[in-house]
Amino acid sequence: MKAKGYAVLFTNQLAEKDSLPYHEFATELHKEVTEQPGFLGMESYRNPEGTGFTISYWESKDAIAHWEKHSLHQAAQHFGKEKAYAWYKLRVCAIEREYHFTKSV
Amino acid sequence: MKAKGYAVLFTNQLAEKDSLPYHEFATELHKEVTEQPGFLGMESYRNPEGTGFTISYWESKDAIAHWEKHSLHQAAQHFGKEKAYAWYKLRVCAIEREYHFTKSV
Repeated sequence: MKAKGYAVLFTNQLAEKDSLPYHEFATELHKEVTEQPGFLGMESYRNPEGTGFTISYWESKDAIAHWEKHSLHQAAQHFGKEKAYAWYKLRVCAIEREYHFTKSV
Repeated sequence: MKAKGYAVLFTNQLAEKDSLPYHEFATELHKEVTEQPGFLGMESYRNPEGTGFTISYWESKDAIAHWEKHSLHQAAQHFGKEKAYAWYKLRVCAIEREYHFTKSV
């Protein structure tokens, strides 16, 4: 089945809540990722306990691989492991089926 | 590529924040879904603005299809469209690659 694009699921737990360096880094990263070829969109959620979830949507696996090699992404990975996160899980997924509902007013 | 299971991404916007019937329904649904064959786990996030995200993990597409036919799920779908949500997006995804990091203490 041909994928309707890809989703990268990034679940994480901040090592320290309200870390200023983390927020600065996240802002810079967010700006850069939106300019990548094949980037389609992003959604972010964070619970009060500091558990967070970011989903980014991509046209292809190649676009994801290209971003993973980006120097800023590699710095983010290093920062994430050394400083920002107690744990994280990354899942690369092929979207096989999707359905959008909007309430008619 | 063989999928490492499936993820169902459910992004939604509550029509009314703090809807009591919604929370009661969600609790009942959560209890039932965890008992389904092939259900592997679930994570939920909701922003203060009422935008929410639930990811459920499944062994196979068959397990997802089986749950979608469940009477409680069908009632939830009806309730969701008629009452609970301003909009929602549902994406069924094959997990192709995953990576777990835990900080060593």
